[in-house]
Amino acid sequence: MACTRRSGFDPQGLEETMVKTVAIVGAGVSGLASIKSCLEEGLEPTCFEKSDDLGGLWRFTEHIEDGKPSLYKSVVSNACKEMSAFSDFPYPEDFPNYLPNAKIFEYLKLYAKHFDLVKHIQFKTAVVSIKKHLDFSTTGQWNVVTESNGKQESSVFDAVMVCTGYLSEPFLPLETFPGIKRFKGSYFHSRFYKHPHIFQGKRVLVVGMGNSGVDIAVEASHVAEKVMISTSRGAWAMSRVFDNGYPWDMVFLTRFMALVRNSLPGPIVRWMIANRMSQWFDHANYGLIPEDRRVLREPVLNDDLPSHIITGKITIRPKVQQFRENSVIFQNSSEEEPIDIVVFATGYTFSFPFLEESLLKVENRQASLYKYIFNPHLKNPTLAIIGLIKPFCAVMPVVELQGRWVTRVFKGLCQLPPVSTMIQEINEKKQNKIHWFGVTFDEVLKTECLEYVDSIASFIGAKPNVLALFFRDPKLALKIFFGPCTNYQYRLTGPGKWDGARNAILTQWDRTLKPTRTRESEDEIVGFAYAAVTEISVLLHQEIKCHHHLSQTRSSAKTPVSVASRERHGEIAQQEAKQELLETMVKRVGIVEAGVSGLASTKCCLEEGLEPTCFKKSDDLGGLWMFTCLLSSGFS
Amino acid sequence: MACTRRSGFDPQGLEETMVKTVAIVGAGVSGLASIKSCLEEGLEPTCFEKSDDLGGLWRFTEHIEDGKPSLYKSVVSNACKEMSAFSDFPYPEDFPNYLPNAKIFEYLKLYAKHFDLVKHIQFKTAVVSIKKHLDFSTTGQWNVVTESNGKQESSVFDAVMVCTGYLSEPFLPLETFPGIKRFKGSYFHSRFYKHPHIFQGKRVLVVGMGNSGVDIAVEASHVAEKVMISTSRGAWAMSRVFDNGYPWDMVFLTRFMALVRNSLPGPIVRWMIANRMSQWFDHANYGLIPEDRRVLREPVLNDDLPSHIITGKITIRPKVQQFRENSVIFQNSSEEEPIDIVVFATGYTFSFPFLEESLLKVENRQASLYKYIFNPHLKNPTLAIIGLIKPFCAVMPVVELQGRWVTRVFKGLCQLPPVSTMIQEINEKKQNKIHWFGVTFDEVLKTECLEYVDSIASFIGAKPNVLALFFRDPKLALKIFFGPCTNYQYRLTGPGKWDGARNAILTQWDRTLKPTRTRESEDEIVGFAYAAVTEISVLLHQEIKCHHHLSQTRSSAKTPVSVASRERHGEIAQQEAKQELLETMVKRVGIVEAGVSGLASTKCCLEEGLEPTCFKKSDDLGGLWMFTCLLSSGFS
Repeated sequence: MACTRRSGFDPQGLEETMVKTVAIVGAGVSGLASIKSCLEEGLEPTCFEKSDDLGGLWRFTEHIEDGKPSLYKSVVSNACKEMSAFSDFPYPEDFPNYLPNAKIFEYLKLYAKHFDLVKHIQFKTAVVSIKKHLDFSTTGQWNVVTESNGKQESSVFDAVMVCTGYLSEPFLPLETFPGIKRFKGSYFHSRFYKHPHIFQGKRVLVVGMGNSGVDIAVEASHVAEKVMISTSRGAWAMSRVFDNGYPWDMVFLTRFMALVRNSLPGPIVRWMIANRMSQWFDHANYGLIPEDRRVLREPVLNDDLPSHIITGKITIRPKVQQFRENSVIFQNSSEEEPIDIVVFATGYTFSFPFLEESLLKVENRQASLYKYIFNPHLKNPTLAIIGLIKPFCAVMPVVELQGRWVTRVFKGLCQLPPVSTMIQEINEKKQNKIHWFGVTFDEVLKTECLEYVDSIASFIGAKPNVLALFFRDPKLALKIFFGPCTNYQYRLTGPGKWDGARNAILTQWDRTLKPTRTRESEDEIVGFAYAAVTEISVLLHQEIKCHHHLSQTRSSAKTPVSVASRERHGEIAQQEAKQELLETMVKRVGIVEAGVSGLASTKCCLEEGLEPTCFKKSDDLGGLWMFTCLLSSGFS
Repeated sequence: MACTRRSGFDPQGLEETMVKTVAIVGAGVSGLASIKSCLEEGLEPTCFEKSDDLGGLWRFTEHIEDGKPSLYKSVVSNACKEMSAFSDFPYPEDFPNYLPNAKIFEYLKLYAKHFDLVKHIQFKTAVVSIKKHLDFSTTGQWNVVTESNGKQESSVFDAVMVCTGYLSEPFLPLETFPGIKRFKGSYFHSRFYKHPHIFQGKRVLVVGMGNSGVDIAVEASHVAEKVMISTSRGAWAMSRVFDNGYPWDMVFLTRFMALVRNSLPGPIVRWMIANRMSQWFDHANYGLIPEDRRVLREPVLNDDLPSHIITGKITIRPKVQQFRENSVIFQNSSEEEPIDIVVFATGYTFSFPFLEESLLKVENRQASLYKYIFNPHLKNPTLAIIGLIKPFCAVMPVVELQGRWVTRVFKGLCQLPPVSTMIQEINEKKQNKIHWFGVTFDEVLKTECLEYVDSIASFIGAKPNVLALFFRDPKLALKIFFGPCTNYQYRLTGPGKWDGARNAILTQWDRTLKPTRTRESEDEIVGFAYAAVTEISVLLHQEIKCHHHLSQTRSSAKTPVSVASRERHGEIAQQEAKQELLETMVKRVGIVEAGVSGLASTKCCLEEGLEPTCFKKSDDLGGLWMFTCLLSSGFS
């Protein structure tokens, strides 16, 4: 469905050459990606940033600015660095896998510098209003009024990209908490939290079990007298340190896994996920079990929560029934719990004060946008909302592809479908979301990351064709299908193709391990790579690890001296050493089971000149995919 | 091998009635257990405690007293409350599973109060010297000189129990760190650490990977600019939150697991453990891999370490090669790492300044004691060292049984073997330790907890006979064999038998879940108990969970309202509700696999009146114990 330039009839009534100047509102992650997309397509971006620096959400400040997102000091990214890199700009290899906010800010600075984006940003310039130009129906142009140093200025732009995000306005429905008015302790929205010292010696209640709520509770528990989290819905909790310590998103977000998830019936997928979540800890025993297990919600990502519960530092409680002067009463309990501070981690809402309601209507905390970007009712698609989406993955890949597509829509190189089709899809999505994710705001913006990104990529012809690739470059194809769905694969083809993309994909695990493999044992003896198939959720992850393990074992089997010399002599020495080690050390590989992983592992071994021996208990290969009537251990 | 009172010939030359008064040095965990043992046996204990309160190690103080152990504020127990309870005094059910030090101190106070131990303690009284009485060879008596308020006093005691522990003297071999003299930053032994604020904004190096070292590094990383841990040996790291979130020691320390561990060849056990450890995270990828994997060392217990490494808050580095003025150089690296503070978490050594060397010789940081208690060369066994052992389990069960045995030895109700036998066993143990645990001090005191405790228990006839019990009380026998090896089982028979022991064992999981099951979901639907056999290390744990799960599901399936009412109406209502739910809700149970767990589960179901259906892939039951030639997924 890659769109190509169509001459002649233009359903949007725009000619290709009409859009040249683009106003971009906000210089956060979305803003920067938008500037770069404009430059790639030969457009002229002007980015208006209210504050005096770029970075948006990721620029930590001690003071809280109105209308600007606010971070607490300790925020760490939920997506690992390989999954959250822009598609043509991998993170430096020594950056940690999950990034403290300061490191993301540093990365954004590096990105802006590398692609020379800063000169397109007007700092300390707020956008006051964006209105249709008088000739909008023919030109699609916009009047943009900005304010800087108290002076307003009006300019005309051919198109507008709104990149202000959805984390600026706290959502705090105080009226739903009976008695909060008479409560004499202090309370505030999580947006106003910066440092844990305010909790020193206090009895703290955190309302809400999102990532912020749990982060704040964990931090508070280091200094507070007592910490409770109140949640009516519960949540699945997940650790960044996933199977065998690999980053959760590099294991979970693969094309293969998505295929499995999308092919199996909903109840089975939910059961599998519940089962996987319980391996870490039984959520009922920890008071976290989701209220309605038939609805799949986004998990909370926190490594510390269960250990803080089991050591009594955090207690999970049900919904608040009522606040008293100095205490709280929880549902189904008559006991008063004394409380000094309440933190409402109740999420965010959003608005666009500079846009007329007719341009972007927010109803029921939902904005009805085609692909979360375009208002389908607008005659000319020259207004795009970038990053108004909360995918269950890093935001960088998403906003970057949004930008790449949008700029081509602006130029008329890609067309939007007819209005009725767009509206139909929006409505379907809403239905779907309600079914899958519940109806509250936080949920509505969530979407299956890969599916969405792939669909946008296909519009600009940047979606990798794995099957075709398999015949041309099988090594790469395997990495793309079974490996983590990193953003680099959207730079292999299409507009904005990047020559470094292939290598970035092949080296993504090296950059992942580099910052943690900081001490090598002197006698690491490795001679056994295995790919035991224990359950679907790690099935193909194993395959990747097998691939990866082989290359790792080869390098890690070296003594530190040879590692040091490798670093001195560079790439050639490395290749030679690898070859030598390959020949001398790892030769025979035992492979356990002959399912998908086992077969793939066997093939990898043959490819790498090793001697695989595959052991299989049953009388046929196929593993999971060999249908049998009886249940057996694990899922297979 | 239970010893009974023998009249007539007495190899120790003591008559039963001779020992009456016992001096106990120190009122920590060992001291309290010793006082209680003396009282149980009708002896007259006098406990001398240097400080003004009981609790020893577990009494946190801001100031560091010479010769007294010192805690940092955040210390949490490594053993869970059920595994670390005294055998006739379970923790209150609302105490958390892993106990902050203040809670252990509270428990010790409760224990002392319940058994009226405090009146036997002389506070602010230091023991200056313990010397053989002139008539020692015939009476076994001791001259004990104490000092209180600057006044010395000498008394004669029939026996002495030394309960001063091994954590009072820091071990800091500065000479092994080249250049430390010129280092201009600050450095100190982990003993002197109290609060993390000293690390604010600093670059911190922690030397040593024991529990303290890792705890301190994790705490420091919340406020420090950078934290590194230097370790030459590496370590296996383990989480308190173990399989499915159950406390690690309740899963790991079972009679069944010990049987498996002791029956299998060493290399297989080590491989299994390495494999289990890697499930959490690959220790090589995190820089933690033990230097010599052929030696099994005690794991480090820390839930936060891997997440702190993957987020870059802590970096693992190899051995320090050299300190510079403001930096450090690690082995196999030429880079200088700037450092502000060094914490030496290099462990402890011990001494007994009040004892002559002839009474207790410490060589090579080892004390040659029979069963870690008695000097075999002493003519009369009236001097016992309690708690000079570092078992890989809670210390309470160990010191309590030591006390129970020792007091019976004092009374002549139990005899020690001949000197040559004792010396032979001591030497064998040393050899064994060197082989299994390496030679450094910390390792030498470690021992297989269960094996040791059982051997001591068998001396006084308190070791449960599981096989005999199986015919008399199969429910209890199953709990004892497959369930966590809690201390209550040593009060089922023998001297000091406690009527509450059986019930304490049957309710140990209830007390475990009580503090964390603090929120119940409104629609918990449970109808499927499974016992999938995935690997040996969780095999029988599953059995316990099956047992447990059935009772849990029955209660958890209730709505919170019924839970609340159950609490109001007490035990009877609970039983009725259970019965009712049993009849109405859980009826059909699917059991996956027919190995040991599966069979036991099936039996449990039948016992409980449920309808089990056991699914088995292979053509025979037996699971793990059914020998097949081929390896299959997992271990089975």
